[in-house]
Amino acid sequence: MKDTGTYLAAMRATAPLVHNITNYVAMNIAANVALAAGASPAMVHAREEVVEFAGLAQALCVNIGTLDPAWAEAMEMAAQVMAANGRPWVLDPVGVGATRFRQDVCARLMSLRPTVIRGNASEILALAGLGCAGRGADSADPVATAEASACDLALRTGAVVAVSGPVDYVTDGTQGFRVANGEALMPRVTALGCSLNSVIAAFLVNQTALPATVAALAYYGLAGERAAQGATGPGSFQVAFLDALYTLSPQDVTAGARVNRA
Amino acid sequence: MKDTGTYLAAMRATAPLVHNITNYVAMNIAANVALAAGASPAMVHAREEVVEFAGLAQALCVNIGTLDPAWAEAMEMAAQVMAANGRPWVLDPVGVGATRFRQDVCARLMSLRPTVIRGNASEILALAGLGCAGRGADSADPVATAEASACDLALRTGAVVAVSGPVDYVTDGTQGFRVANGEALMPRVTALGCSLNSVIAAFLVNQTALPATVAALAYYGLAGERAAQGATGPGSFQVAFLDALYTLSPQDVTAGARVNRA
Amino acid sequence: MKDTGTYLAAMRATAPLVHNITNYVAMNIAANVALAAGASPAMVHAREEVVEFAGLAQALCVNIGTLDPAWAEAMEMAAQVMAANGRPWVLDPVGVGATRFRQDVCARLMSLRPTVIRGNASEILALAGLGCAGRGADSADPVATAEASACDLALRTGAVVAVSGPVDYVTDGTQGFRVANGEALMPRVTALGCSLNSVIAAFLVNQTALPATVAALAYYGLAGERAAQGATGPGSFQVAFLDALYTLSPQDVTAGARVNRA
Repeated sequence: MKDTGTYLAAMRATAPLVHNITNYVAMNIAANVALAAGASPAMVHAREEVVEFAGLAQALCVNIGTLDPAWAEAMEMAAQVMAANGRPWVLDPVGVGATRFRQDVCARLMSLRPTVIRGNASEILALAGLGCAGRGADSADPVATAEASACDLALRTGAVVAVSGPVDYVTDGTQGFRVANGEALMPRVTALGCSLNSVIAAFLVNQTALPATVAALAYYGLAGERAAQGATGPGSFQVAFLDALYTLSPQDVTAGARVNRA
Repeated sequence: MKDTGTYLAAMRATAPLVHNITNYVAMNIAANVALAAGASPAMVHAREEVVEFAGLAQALCVNIGTLDPAWAEAMEMAAQVMAANGRPWVLDPVGVGATRFRQDVCARLMSLRPTVIRGNASEILALAGLGCAGRGADSADPVATAEASACDLALRTGAVVAVSGPVDYVTDGTQGFRVANGEALMPRVTALGCSLNSVIAAFLVNQTALPATVAALAYYGLAGERAAQGATGPGSFQVAFLDALYTLSPQDVTAGARVNRA
Repeated sequence: MKDTGTYLAAMRATAPLVHNITNYVAMNIAANVALAAGASPAMVHAREEVVEFAGLAQALCVNIGTLDPAWAEAMEMAAQVMAANGRPWVLDPVGVGATRFRQDVCARLMSLRPTVIRGNASEILALAGLGCAGRGADSADPVATAEASACDLALRTGAVVAVSGPVDYVTDGTQGFRVANGEALMPRVTALGCSLNSVIAAFLVNQTALPATVAALAYYGLAGERAAQGATGPGSFQVAFLDALYTLSPQDVTAGARVNRA
C-alpha cells in the first residue's frame, strides 16, 4: 500500500467532481467537508437530470438518510451510470435496520455494485442480513461484532466494506485493515459519517478501492484528532474539523495515520 | 416542581430517540442541537416508513417550516402513532398566520393532541384564532399579548402551550410559568426555535409535560446566555451555543434557571 | 451613485421579508446570512401556498441548485407574483450549463423578468447561449470572459447581471462596475454564492437595481475580507463571516468598498 498521504495529494491535484445524492441533514456539511478536503461536490437528484449529471461526475456518493421513493429512484439511476462508466460510487445505508423500506432500497442499490459500502456496525450487520439492534443513525453494536459480516458482504457484493467506529474496520473480503484515527466528539456532530462518504468517493477516483478507502478514513480521523485540540464542545469541534481537513497536508496524513492489517 | 436540572439529567441518562419531521432550514442545526444536549435525533418523513419509524421513537417533533402536502401527511401519520402509543409529541406552527394552507394543516395536527405546542406570540395568536400580524418566522407581537390565547389554546387542545420570546410563557391552561433565560442574539441564528422543539421532545419522555417543558426552556435559554459571553456575532454565538448545550451540567441548570410562576 | 453603506443602512432600517426558493444545501446558511445582515428571510415552496406567501414578501430570491420540477413550478409562480407586484427578484442559475433541464427552467424564469441575475462566469456564459465549460457549481471560466455576455444578457432580459469571481462584474447593459472586495476562502465554503442572493434581494427593496447590487457585493466581499483575518480554514472563516456581516456598519462599507466603473 502506498503512503496514505499520497491519496490525499492525488485527490487534491484533480479536485474530482463528486455527485452526491444524500440526506437533507447532511447536504450542507457534506458539501463543506468535501470542499475543505479539496474535492468539488455537487448535489443533484431530479430524475429529469440525474443521469445527465452523473455522466459528468468522477464519483458518486449515495446516502439513504432522509429517503423517499423519488430519491431512491434517483440513486438507482445515478448508480447505474457509474456502474456503466466504470466509475466509483459509495453507498451509506443509514438506519437500514430501522424499516422495511430502507432494506428494500438497499437491496436494489447493492445489486448495482457499489465500490464501497460504509456504515456503522449495526448498519453493516443489518445489510448482511444478520439482524440489527440499531435505531436511527446511531450504532448499538461495537465494530468487532460486524467484522465477519463485513467480510461476507464484501465477498457477496464485490464492494469494499468499511465499518465505522472508534476503530474502523475495512475489508474487501480477503484483506482487512483497522484504522484507529478518530475522536470521541465526532458522533456528537450530525452527519459527519455521511460527509465522510464524499471524501471516500473523491479518494476513489483512479485508485484501488481498498487502500484509497483506508487512506480516506485515516485522513478523516486524523482531522478529528487535530480538531479536538482546543475544542470545548461539538460546536467548536465542527469548526476546527473543517479547518483541519483543509490544513492537513499529505505528509501530516502519512505521519499521523494509525493503520494496521487486521 | 422538581429541580430544573433533574430533567436534563434524566434525559441524558436515556438519550431518547427523537423522531423529527421538520423543515429543510432546521434539519442540520436541530440534529446538532439534540446531539449536543444528549438526545438521539433522527429525521424520517416518507410515507413508506414514517409509521414504522415513529413506532421506534420515544418522542416526536413536528415543525411546519417548509411545508408541502406530502410532508403534512407524514406529520399526521407520525402524530397518530405517538397519540396511539401515549408518547409525547411537539408541534411548532411556524408562520401559521401567513397562509391558509398552514392554518389547515395545523388544524388537523391540533386534533391529534400534541403534548406541547410551542411558537412565538404571533403564531400562538394565529393558532388561537385571534388574528395575527406575523410574517414568516419572526414574531410581530410581544409575548404578553398571547398569554390569554395560550391559556385558551391549552384548555381547548389539552396541550401545554409555550410562547417563546425574551421571557417565555408556558401554560397548561391552569398553571403558568415565565422563563426569563435567553439571549438577544438567539433570533439572529436561524432555526434555533425549531431546534428547541427537539430538546423539549426529549425532555418530555417519561415526565410531566408542564415542568419538563419549563425545564427545557430554562436549559436552552441558559445555554444562550453562556454562549453570548465572548461571542462577537451570530456565527460565533451559534458555535458557542452548541458547546454550551453540551457542557452545561444539571447543577448549572438548576442554579441558573430563572423560572417564576405567572 | 450613493455611498455603498447607504444601502446597508436602508435595508437594516426595514428588515425586509425576503422569500427564498433555494436549494437544500443553501437553506440554512442563506437564512443565517440574511439574518446576520439584518433582513428577515423565509423559505416557502409548496404550490399550495407559494403565491399567497410571495404576496407578503418585499423581495424574492430564486436558486436552481437542487432543482426538481415541483420546485421549478414554485419558482415560476412566485416570480410571477413579484413581476405583477413590481417587486424585485433575483435569479441564481446554479450549474445551468450542466443539464438540459436546468437550461429549460432558466429560460422560463428569464422570461419572468428577474431584477438581477447573478452567477459565476460559466453560468452567465451558459445563460447567454455561448456554451459553457462549467461543471457543478464551480466556475471553469474567468470573469473577464463573461463580460460581453453579461451585457448582452442584461440588454436582452432587462436584468442587472452580476458575474461573481475574484473581481465581480455588474452591468445593466449600459453601465458596468467592478467590485474588487472578496476573499479567496469564500469558494471553499458551500453556498456562500447562493446566500449572497438573499442579501442582494434585501438590498434591492425600494432601490435602483444597479447600485444596490453593487453595494450588496461590496458589503459581502468586505465581510469576507474581515472574516479572513484570523481564520485558519473554511470552518473558522464561515463563523467569522457571519459575525462580520452582523458587525460591519454602513460607514465600514462605504470606507472599505472597492468599486470602480468598468
